[in-house]
Amino acid sequence: MISFTSTPAIDSIFSDENTTRAQLRVEAALARVEARLGLIPNEAGEQISAAAESMRVDLAALQAGMVDDGFPIIALVKQLQAAVGAQAAPFVHWGATTQDIMDTGLVLQLRETLEVIEHDLAALIKLFYALADQHRHTLMAGRTHSQHALPITFGYKVAGWLAPLLRHRVRLAELRPRVLVLQFGGATGTLAALGAVGLQVQEALAQELGLATLPMPWHTQRDGLAELAGWLSLVTGSLGKCAQDIILMAQSEVSELRESGNRARGGSSTMPQKSNPVVSEMILAAARANAGLLGNMHHALIQEHERATHGWQLEWLTLPQMIAHTAGALARAVFLGENLVVDAER
Amino acid sequence: MISFTSTPAIDSIFSDENTTRAQLRVEAALARVEARLGLIPNEAGEQISAAAESMRVDLAALQAGMVDDGFPIIALVKQLQAAVGAQAAPFVHWGATTQDIMDTGLVLQLRETLEVIEHDLAALIKLFYALADQHRHTLMAGRTHSQHALPITFGYKVAGWLAPLLRHRVRLAELRPRVLVLQFGGATGTLAALGAVGLQVQEALAQELGLATLPMPWHTQRDGLAELAGWLSLVTGSLGKCAQDIILMAQSEVSELRESGNRARGGSSTMPQKSNPVVSEMILAAARANAGLLGNMHHALIQEHERATHGWQLEWLTLPQMIAHTAGALARAVFLGENLVVDAER
Amino acid sequence: MISFTSTPAIDSIFSDENTTRAQLRVEAALARVEARLGLIPNEAGEQISAAAESMRVDLAALQAGMVDDGFPIIALVKQLQAAVGAQAAPFVHWGATTQDIMDTGLVLQLRETLEVIEHDLAALIKLFYALADQHRHTLMAGRTHSQHALPITFGYKVAGWLAPLLRHRVRLAELRPRVLVLQFGGATGTLAALGAVGLQVQEALAQELGLATLPMPWHTQRDGLAELAGWLSLVTGSLGKCAQDIILMAQSEVSELRESGNRARGGSSTMPQKSNPVVSEMILAAARANAGLLGNMHHALIQEHERATHGWQLEWLTLPQMIAHTAGALARAVFLGENLVVDAER
Amino acid sequence: MISFTSTPAIDSIFSDENTTRAQLRVEAALARVEARLGLIPNEAGEQISAAAESMRVDLAALQAGMVDDGFPIIALVKQLQAAVGAQAAPFVHWGATTQDIMDTGLVLQLRETLEVIEHDLAALIKLFYALADQHRHTLMAGRTHSQHALPITFGYKVAGWLAPLLRHRVRLAELRPRVLVLQFGGATGTLAALGAVGLQVQEALAQELGLATLPMPWHTQRDGLAELAGWLSLVTGSLGKCAQDIILMAQSEVSELRESGNRARGGSSTMPQKSNPVVSEMILAAARANAGLLGNMHHALIQEHERATHGWQLEWLTLPQMIAHTAGALARAVFLGENLVVDAER
Repeated sequence: MISFTSTPAIDSIFSDENTTRAQLRVEAALARVEARLGLIPNEAGEQISAAAESMRVDLAALQAGMVDDGFPIIALVKQLQAAVGAQAAPFVHWGATTQDIMDTGLVLQLRETLEVIEHDLAALIKLFYALADQHRHTLMAGRTHSQHALPITFGYKVAGWLAPLLRHRVRLAELRPRVLVLQFGGATGTLAALGAVGLQVQEALAQELGLATLPMPWHTQRDGLAELAGWLSLVTGSLGKCAQDIILMAQSEVSELRESGNRARGGSSTMPQKSNPVVSEMILAAARANAGLLGNMHHALIQEHERATHGWQLEWLTLPQMIAHTAGALARAVFLGENLVVDAER
Repeated sequence: MISFTSTPAIDSIFSDENTTRAQLRVEAALARVEARLGLIPNEAGEQISAAAESMRVDLAALQAGMVDDGFPIIALVKQLQAAVGAQAAPFVHWGATTQDIMDTGLVLQLRETLEVIEHDLAALIKLFYALADQHRHTLMAGRTHSQHALPITFGYKVAGWLAPLLRHRVRLAELRPRVLVLQFGGATGTLAALGAVGLQVQEALAQELGLATLPMPWHTQRDGLAELAGWLSLVTGSLGKCAQDIILMAQSEVSELRESGNRARGGSSTMPQKSNPVVSEMILAAARANAGLLGNMHHALIQEHERATHGWQLEWLTLPQMIAHTAGALARAVFLGENLVVDAER
Repeated sequence: MISFTSTPAIDSIFSDENTTRAQLRVEAALARVEARLGLIPNEAGEQISAAAESMRVDLAALQAGMVDDGFPIIALVKQLQAAVGAQAAPFVHWGATTQDIMDTGLVLQLRETLEVIEHDLAALIKLFYALADQHRHTLMAGRTHSQHALPITFGYKVAGWLAPLLRHRVRLAELRPRVLVLQFGGATGTLAALGAVGLQVQEALAQELGLATLPMPWHTQRDGLAELAGWLSLVTGSLGKCAQDIILMAQSEVSELRESGNRARGGSSTMPQKSNPVVSEMILAAARANAGLLGNMHHALIQEHERATHGWQLEWLTLPQMIAHTAGALARAVFLGENLVVDAER
Repeated sequence: MISFTSTPAIDSIFSDENTTRAQLRVEAALARVEARLGLIPNEAGEQISAAAESMRVDLAALQAGMVDDGFPIIALVKQLQAAVGAQAAPFVHWGATTQDIMDTGLVLQLRETLEVIEHDLAALIKLFYALADQHRHTLMAGRTHSQHALPITFGYKVAGWLAPLLRHRVRLAELRPRVLVLQFGGATGTLAALGAVGLQVQEALAQELGLATLPMPWHTQRDGLAELAGWLSLVTGSLGKCAQDIILMAQSEVSELRESGNRARGGSSTMPQKSNPVVSEMILAAARANAGLLGNMHHALIQEHERATHGWQLEWLTLPQMIAHTAGALARAVFLGENLVVDAER
């Protein structure tokens, strides 16, 4: 279906091409670090690092690998080996396991994602501050249980949309160091293949990629991702409350505001006079979509032993969507913050 | 992320191009029917019908329409009007509302979908019958609460995978006439724009498209779609149980079966001797994904008044995925039914 | 928290006392049937049957058994053995497994539940028919995307609440024979302990209890229960749509109806003039609660081998609540059907 | 059903009696504070405070109030007014709204709850530290995708159960000040009834109850509760992973551990030799139950205007259960930490 969620920036971060690029960045950094530490020849490190940046990726072969292996990394490693030539090939992916590359690649994408989202969140906060200030004396009915109660101001209502966003910013700062972490543990998380220098490689790789480390690999400790998912859904939930309020205020009988001054937006195929609050509808749908998806991210916490049998794939089916819904809802909320037309007389 | 759900057939049915084609088929049928009933000129009916089949669709313009209007139909109607020329243009989309076209278009896609799914379901049933029969004397431990209990046969276990599938087939036959139904009600579902002949148009349009009708338009009565979603998740749930059993039997300590004789499948990037049950893992992930998504389809039952403010969009974000997960899981289960290697000695 | 869901009838059906009574009814019927078939002494059959009906149940001991064993049946069997005396004691629970008793006991409760629910559903349908008829000329605004669209009648709106309920009745008739089924398979579902007469016992027990049978025990084939859960949530979803409409029509700005003529209901602790639509609120909360819970019932489809390791318990945590929410929402909807005050002038 | 979730401590905190006591503690503190600030007569303050502590609560009348009003507070205020006598009666509940009392009462219960949970979490952490240390050289197979991979130690596996718990402790410290907050805003959250001294009352009341304050009432800003719910489900998710591992290691074919040395536990009604991992099963069921329930807490973020129409009730139906599941799972995990029998030879 023609898309009405996500944003171009997020779609680009999570394209197959960029997902693979992120994984290759991890392979490249690993080779550089291992060369520096003398684990693989310097030349191999340079060749792998260079090839991983510049090689043409054959996505169809990765898709075939996904079908055969359950993930695309074996196929990707083969492509990278072919690109570096016979001498460096054995040193590709040295000491790493598939999940190291895929999880760390994902974390690199999450870092980009959080920058985009944080930027829009800041923009929205600024817009809501201005709107609350502008309308701090615009009287309106307070409404409880759908009934008129004591009066409030529209500024007060906007402040109520704003307050949770400020807390979400604090929450993001708190969880970020638990999410933007390197995954690197080798086959069963013990770094066994690297012997005594395993932890050194881990540390250096984290530094190379600008990521934090955890005391242990988190191959089957997925609390960081589930916490992030919870945050995404908190954000869309708060935006959803705001969107629900706007839809209610835009009702024909209430008409306290419109989504934008552009009458042509939110049109109807049969009734041209209508102005549907379609932006708020999309935000609200995203909020409810995320709420349900979050449950699946928490079911995905239950991952067996040292590497799971399906919880990881459940994350793949869930987290990127939650990100798309959140970024899309935020961008639409910024649109509303910029365009909302308030009928102060009502 | 490189896809590991869905199938090419389903991806094709739900491509933007085909989604739009399905909507155009509805517009075409409507024009033919209305011409036949004398509501619009015969020539207009022919022109619209022909153009709707053959016109080039500008998907970018539909995407822009989605952003502006909240759905792509206003933009699509404009494209169709441009394609038929000035004389027939006013008769395009006559008496219909956006949701009539989108819902009925979706139903046409669902009809194709159910054929694909039913075909694979029948194939799987046949494979499981054969497997159960083949192993009706293959003794193995029955297991309850993860502990050995009295012995069973592997044929008995397969029969336990099969039995729910037979019931799902009955359920599908029951729900199909509640799902493959025309949506046609005009602006508020009353067919008001068509006056006295509204019901006649509805009846004729249903016949033209080979769909059933309900006593009323179902713009905000979404029980048919939610029931279908429940069925999809029942199917993946039953397949998930089977996949979970296979994963457990494929454990190193149990080794009663392998997913296929091809040792190269389910490989590891570090441990070539491994044979991961990746097909079962994908099925199980699809089952859990659907379970959570189903909740959102039921939240989407709560749709306001004569046309909802976000429940419809929540369906768009949910149902196509559930179809993809189900079709993908079924196709993978058929693979297992064809390739499962049972170590009868163990 | 003081309860606002469920009904006294449902609370009674699912009390610990009655849950245990239902399990004892299964043990009693089993003993009678096995005596009749000559598997256990006639006298033992009579003693067990009589004791199971009349014995005092020690719920605290069952709770202790639940903690130790993970279910209360071992403790219950002990109590029943003590009640029948040393001679009949060995013949208690003959050939059955815990899950046979608990699942069949649950099915007996479900049969009572469905009678209660079907009764209220029929009452509601009758009330909505009358309301739709009474207001078939009461004009009001049709509303789409929260905006006024073409006019409808209030009778038409009520017909839109009614139509899904009629389909739910059809669905219930279809699923009932898949849900009201005996569970009886012994330790691993093979009836091994009963030898050649196992299937005869199964058939006779089903007849004794008035239940249908399935081709195999459904210890880990839970599609019947998940289907029932889906039906419960379809019902509350349809009621939730109705409740949402009522809340919107009861808004101060719309005031087209009130939940009842009794101004004292739905009061406020601070604003006595208010009349909150609290009955509709409870229905809507129940609908959303069920939507999410349904997801868990579908996760519970994934049950391992011949007896699961946690999916069964997940059902216990979920299904009784869904029943309570559904019965409670239905009873409240009947209240609305009886008391709704429509301001036909608006 | 005989309970297998929760703990006696939590059941007691959330009993109807104690829920009401918590609400009365808020009414009492409010009266003391308002008397101190000269808003109500000193004598009234003392009488209300004393009566709220000592009065007999008529729960049946609260239940009737729940049915009529949608919440029990109007009925509770009447009981309190009757208890204080005619002179003080008008000063009961002065300037407060129903939700102020219910939400703050809930927060007092949450404070007790978090103490219980934190205590058990600390105990579990200690047990897992000891277990990890004890088995830091106990070799076992690492397992990925259910297949043997490189060896690990059992101590390493336990460390993997422990690590997320340490992060959960940090998360709890971060979120606590966002959850243990006073709710006090009056009818529409503006404290209008109290005039200029509203904020003073708010501040003093928070201090009196030992709670923090937020910049605004959070009547429809529910991010604190949803965040808490997310935390609860993170905890059960991590425990669920541990329980899943234990179930897999307790399999007959693996037999690396048993839940306890007491062979009588986890028994079977037909196969006395069995030792079912029933404690782990309960933990795992609780984890999955919470995962789905969490989705509903996020749907409940969407609350309309200044007081919602059903989202609040959806919380009532959801949060107490999540607390029960979490506390129950933690207590069971502590049991496992104390009783787990590891077969170090295997």
